[in-house]
Amino acid sequence: MSKISVAVLGATGMIGQRFIQMLEDHPYFEIEGLYASERSNGKKLSEVLKVRDHVYLDETMDMEIQTMDIKKISANCRIAFSGIPSDLAGPTETELAGEGVAVFTNAGSHRMDEHVPILIPEVNPDQIEAIKDQPTYSNGGYIITNANCSSTGIAAPLAAINNVYGLKQVFVSTYQALSGAGYPGVPSLDAVGNVVPYIGGEEEKMESELAKMLGTYSDGKFNYAGFKVMANCARVPVVDGHLESLVLELEQQPTLEELDACLSGFRGEPQELGLPSAPEQPIIVRKEANRPQPVFDAMAGRPARAKGMAVTIGRLRQGNGYYKAFAMSHNTLRGGAGGSVLNAELAKARGLL
Amino acid sequence: MSKISVAVLGATGMIGQRFIQMLEDHPYFEIEGLYASERSNGKKLSEVLKVRDHVYLDETMDMEIQTMDIKKISANCRIAFSGIPSDLAGPTETELAGEGVAVFTNAGSHRMDEHVPILIPEVNPDQIEAIKDQPTYSNGGYIITNANCSSTGIAAPLAAINNVYGLKQVFVSTYQALSGAGYPGVPSLDAVGNVVPYIGGEEEKMESELAKMLGTYSDGKFNYAGFKVMANCARVPVVDGHLESLVLELEQQPTLEELDACLSGFRGEPQELGLPSAPEQPIIVRKEANRPQPVFDAMAGRPARAKGMAVTIGRLRQGNGYYKAFAMSHNTLRGGAGGSVLNAELAKARGLL
Amino acid sequence: MSKISVAVLGATGMIGQRFIQMLEDHPYFEIEGLYASERSNGKKLSEVLKVRDHVYLDETMDMEIQTMDIKKISANCRIAFSGIPSDLAGPTETELAGEGVAVFTNAGSHRMDEHVPILIPEVNPDQIEAIKDQPTYSNGGYIITNANCSSTGIAAPLAAINNVYGLKQVFVSTYQALSGAGYPGVPSLDAVGNVVPYIGGEEEKMESELAKMLGTYSDGKFNYAGFKVMANCARVPVVDGHLESLVLELEQQPTLEELDACLSGFRGEPQELGLPSAPEQPIIVRKEANRPQPVFDAMAGRPARAKGMAVTIGRLRQGNGYYKAFAMSHNTLRGGAGGSVLNAELAKARGLL
Amino acid sequence: MSKISVAVLGATGMIGQRFIQMLEDHPYFEIEGLYASERSNGKKLSEVLKVRDHVYLDETMDMEIQTMDIKKISANCRIAFSGIPSDLAGPTETELAGEGVAVFTNAGSHRMDEHVPILIPEVNPDQIEAIKDQPTYSNGGYIITNANCSSTGIAAPLAAINNVYGLKQVFVSTYQALSGAGYPGVPSLDAVGNVVPYIGGEEEKMESELAKMLGTYSDGKFNYAGFKVMANCARVPVVDGHLESLVLELEQQPTLEELDACLSGFRGEPQELGLPSAPEQPIIVRKEANRPQPVFDAMAGRPARAKGMAVTIGRLRQGNGYYKAFAMSHNTLRGGAGGSVLNAELAKARGLL
Repeated sequence: MSKISVAVLGATGMIGQRFIQMLEDHPYFEIEGLYASERSNGKKLSEVLKVRDHVYLDETMDMEIQTMDIKKISANCRIAFSGIPSDLAGPTETELAGEGVAVFTNAGSHRMDEHVPILIPEVNPDQIEAIKDQPTYSNGGYIITNANCSSTGIAAPLAAINNVYGLKQVFVSTYQALSGAGYPGVPSLDAVGNVVPYIGGEEEKMESELAKMLGTYSDGKFNYAGFKVMANCARVPVVDGHLESLVLELEQQPTLEELDACLSGFRGEPQELGLPSAPEQPIIVRKEANRPQPVFDAMAGRPARAKGMAVTIGRLRQGNGYYKAFAMSHNTLRGGAGGSVLNAELAKARGLL
Repeated sequence: MSKISVAVLGATGMIGQRFIQMLEDHPYFEIEGLYASERSNGKKLSEVLKVRDHVYLDETMDMEIQTMDIKKISANCRIAFSGIPSDLAGPTETELAGEGVAVFTNAGSHRMDEHVPILIPEVNPDQIEAIKDQPTYSNGGYIITNANCSSTGIAAPLAAINNVYGLKQVFVSTYQALSGAGYPGVPSLDAVGNVVPYIGGEEEKMESELAKMLGTYSDGKFNYAGFKVMANCARVPVVDGHLESLVLELEQQPTLEELDACLSGFRGEPQELGLPSAPEQPIIVRKEANRPQPVFDAMAGRPARAKGMAVTIGRLRQGNGYYKAFAMSHNTLRGGAGGSVLNAELAKARGLL
Repeated sequence: MSKISVAVLGATGMIGQRFIQMLEDHPYFEIEGLYASERSNGKKLSEVLKVRDHVYLDETMDMEIQTMDIKKISANCRIAFSGIPSDLAGPTETELAGEGVAVFTNAGSHRMDEHVPILIPEVNPDQIEAIKDQPTYSNGGYIITNANCSSTGIAAPLAAINNVYGLKQVFVSTYQALSGAGYPGVPSLDAVGNVVPYIGGEEEKMESELAKMLGTYSDGKFNYAGFKVMANCARVPVVDGHLESLVLELEQQPTLEELDACLSGFRGEPQELGLPSAPEQPIIVRKEANRPQPVFDAMAGRPARAKGMAVTIGRLRQGNGYYKAFAMSHNTLRGGAGGSVLNAELAKARGLL
Repeated sequence: MSKISVAVLGATGMIGQRFIQMLEDHPYFEIEGLYASERSNGKKLSEVLKVRDHVYLDETMDMEIQTMDIKKISANCRIAFSGIPSDLAGPTETELAGEGVAVFTNAGSHRMDEHVPILIPEVNPDQIEAIKDQPTYSNGGYIITNANCSSTGIAAPLAAINNVYGLKQVFVSTYQALSGAGYPGVPSLDAVGNVVPYIGGEEEKMESELAKMLGTYSDGKFNYAGFKVMANCARVPVVDGHLESLVLELEQQPTLEELDACLSGFRGEPQELGLPSAPEQPIIVRKEANRPQPVFDAMAGRPARAKGMAVTIGRLRQGNGYYKAFAMSHNTLRGGAGGSVLNAELAKARGLL
């Protein structure tokens, strides 16, 4: 079986480089082209990366890919993985879908569009069917988004719990990594020895995206889940990996052992289907007093292809009628490029490619 | 009027050095002796500080104090400011109070004792009267504690709000500074580029101390406030200054403007009395999108003597029936040595010294 | 005696804010105007600082200054302190000098111009006389630069040693702070847990500026000192304060005690004249095994106005015919705005204003 | 061919865990036993690692190894890889060698012993023959040390250059990672936003070890190389990877292109023999303006087993009769456990096991 040719949009950026990493030696997909802004047009990837100060992944990057020419974005590919900025992503992705391209995007522009799913294959695989109601679907084009990185980090645990015990309220505070702001992103004078308690739009995204993802799609529209989310978002001096504190109000009152079992035992469609980038155990529960931590747990996930794709939960506690925990996930893998690649794997498995 | 002689217990530690800093040129108090563990006995402070790797405040420390001899703890002083570890503090402070010493302590050992107030003069000045029920009071000895540093950081804002609008629930997540763990404290390999979502006993302290402080003392016992606290505590790579995210449920529904006015306008007994270490405005409300931050706001407070004694609040928001904010305070000044010094100033003003 | 009115150019930048800090309540100078780029024109300083993410010094800044209007740069002042970027500084400062303004600048544009001194009042006070050969001097205008921050940090110790024991070779490696790159400056992803072994042009500046400063000015031209400098420059994740390692080859072979005495006892014209921003002891020698360190020693200098104006030396060692040491100085105070303010104080004392 | 059974001494420490990592699936060696101090005796590795706060490598560690029992050190093995502290290493390693064990150690205790080589297989493979003069050699026991981590980082480049162009003087300043101090090691309050310009004994080690390694062994004794080393050592807030600045005086005056070719083209006995942990190219020369950097270059080395085993050089410059560069190496892989494993591979290839 020949592989499906894919394009990476925004290949020189932080998410773009993570796309390249996730797609190396991929069993379904093969990089056909790298696309970036006008000013990189015609250059080789390695040249562009060397001109910039920051070459995030060059040590591990395949030489064949390093010497690919970067092109201006066009539509001659079956799949486009998009890591371009939101302002550009909006019109570009619409245009590509119109020309028959299946767009899997990390950008936020279309997340709240009707018929566009915010997809996490373990959480809401059936919402992928919404694409059939997109006007461009008939000629093969559609848009599938992944969630904001901080929403992704808790979506699977919340879904696992919601399925069994019913979620009523979610109080979440984030400890978000610097890579979430891209490069150059946060100035070092704001980061070293400091915390910035503000990430533009992030709290609103968490409060709306989780409800959309944990809802349903039927009769041509999304029905949002009924629980409430109260989010406080902050940036901490960590390179990769978002930590999030949780206080949950549930409909039922499971014991902590039941909650642990519910999370540890959670499996979704990607696990059943054995999708290549799916972690064997999507939610890892740590028992140690002081975990999860970014330096130890951001890259959780087995097998090797799924490193950084598992979510880690720890410090399960209970009191005052609430449940408390800390969750950890990799913001540019599970919460970025890896999420979109897994979405494309689900699309292929469901015959949508 | 001659100054009251005071002793600093644990003078070589991080809180001890902050006590020395707060007591330099103090209008009421004069350092009579520095006390530390057996192994420093008979040495000069400057010698001990130079032997250790970490000399926190030497650049600013008065030469006369630097050359004081360190003694083994004894009871020949009117006031003891205690920055010794909790295991040692328990029996030592009991003994000192028994011998007629007024103990103002940063240690947690006696915080939950009956008749021992956890005092923040802006918040619960009347609870100081509890000391009169301590068995040692008749011969002049008593113990007054300050709160845990993360409780202190939000106690004044919560009190200001509770007084007017009634608190029902407090959801708090902390971003706590490294200096809170003392020296050597947190290993650098756990701190650089990392967050540790665990501080032993901290969440329990927040959940009990705030209720005690915002309650009342009458008929010889403390009546705890009725609101609930759900705390998640984490250590971030910041040197000084605890940031805390808040979600509050109130009995009434003030506008954000009303809430801001309530906080900014809050004044307590220390402000009325003009106590030396009291900040003119104990709660500062910042309007910027991205404040408070440790590097900018930890040292808030005017005049000069009250630097690090004000609490800063920012990002007041409202939604889903809740109020949200971030709070910031200096954990070893307002939340440590400075808190105890202000407590002693209140004791003096109320004629208890 | 009325104070001399001064302008601060680049008032919204990092050096500009340090100028404002150094000039508050200054005995000789009074801020007459704040100047910045077109886009701040007509706004109040506090507005501009609040619009930007980073407000470096607002907590300590005088309210009267905070509410000053920012103007477009013009020439109606006796003194201009310049913290503008080098590309802009070149022509702007030339123009101002042409219109009779005494320019004290932190920018590098004119450092290597003939008749323009790179002035450090403790090191080469007589080079100030070079301004008399500037073509604009006759109408009162001239340019005096301070050295690059990493050169400044070692200039006084090298001068002290050179005067007595003769310098032959200087091997220096720098550990430079992030504030040296301004704001936004270094991206946090390059700074957190990392070292960047490159600062554009810095090594060349060190190798040329030190020789110019430690040389002489006579017969209308600068005669460079004869020692050689071999510099390696790197950026470390420190906020303020440049650390530098030194290996020195000298003409004579003093003992370490003699070297220590030579450095500790060094005094210059600013100390003799009692200039307001001059540290009583310009070179502090620490005996501890592990000093100087940025967090402890960057702000060295007494009295209060001279904080951050002293250089700290430590770890004096000897072997293989060489001398070794570490030096530390504050890069935006002594090595930035403070240096220019001290230069202006010298100019005034010498009757050049 | 069956694998050689090996013991890991100090298995619960930072170097011990790196030994385990390097030995997983090793083609020559198989872990027979894990040894640590009395207090871990009889426990499983995973238990000990979980009790401690810091579990450096657990995510990647083989489950079979995680559940091995930790034993008290004994002599029933052919090879002992030693990551125990120097004070303990001295007598323990002597005793093991006496009982016929081949000891490959990271500890410094025996480095300066006669007949004990400080071995880097690319640099001084023939010095391995010195073990034949150790008194215990006749019954199969001997000690081979690797160099101090900061010496290792520059030994190969210096050897490559010395072989061709002759080294006269080496001026080196280090930017050393926190992991070099072990765990708990450096307190975070000394590390965050700071540099500590002192590492006990490090400079002396660099000045003596390099001369021993780049010398020869003949007639039963080591002849030290004649060049001089002047070292300044400092600790920076980096997790893994030592950066070092270099100024070199050479006997000849190659062009920078010649120097680059000399370094890039350097190969040693491990490369000729194809030893499993040998990097294909032991010295990588980077052309970018701002490399090497810890976050990008610490893990340099191909193939996968040799990650962290290559040294990276960058910023080759020339002036004043000197050559300048920055070098980078992984301090606990090439400069720690990996170095000892490669030493054992050489011993096997030379028939000494």
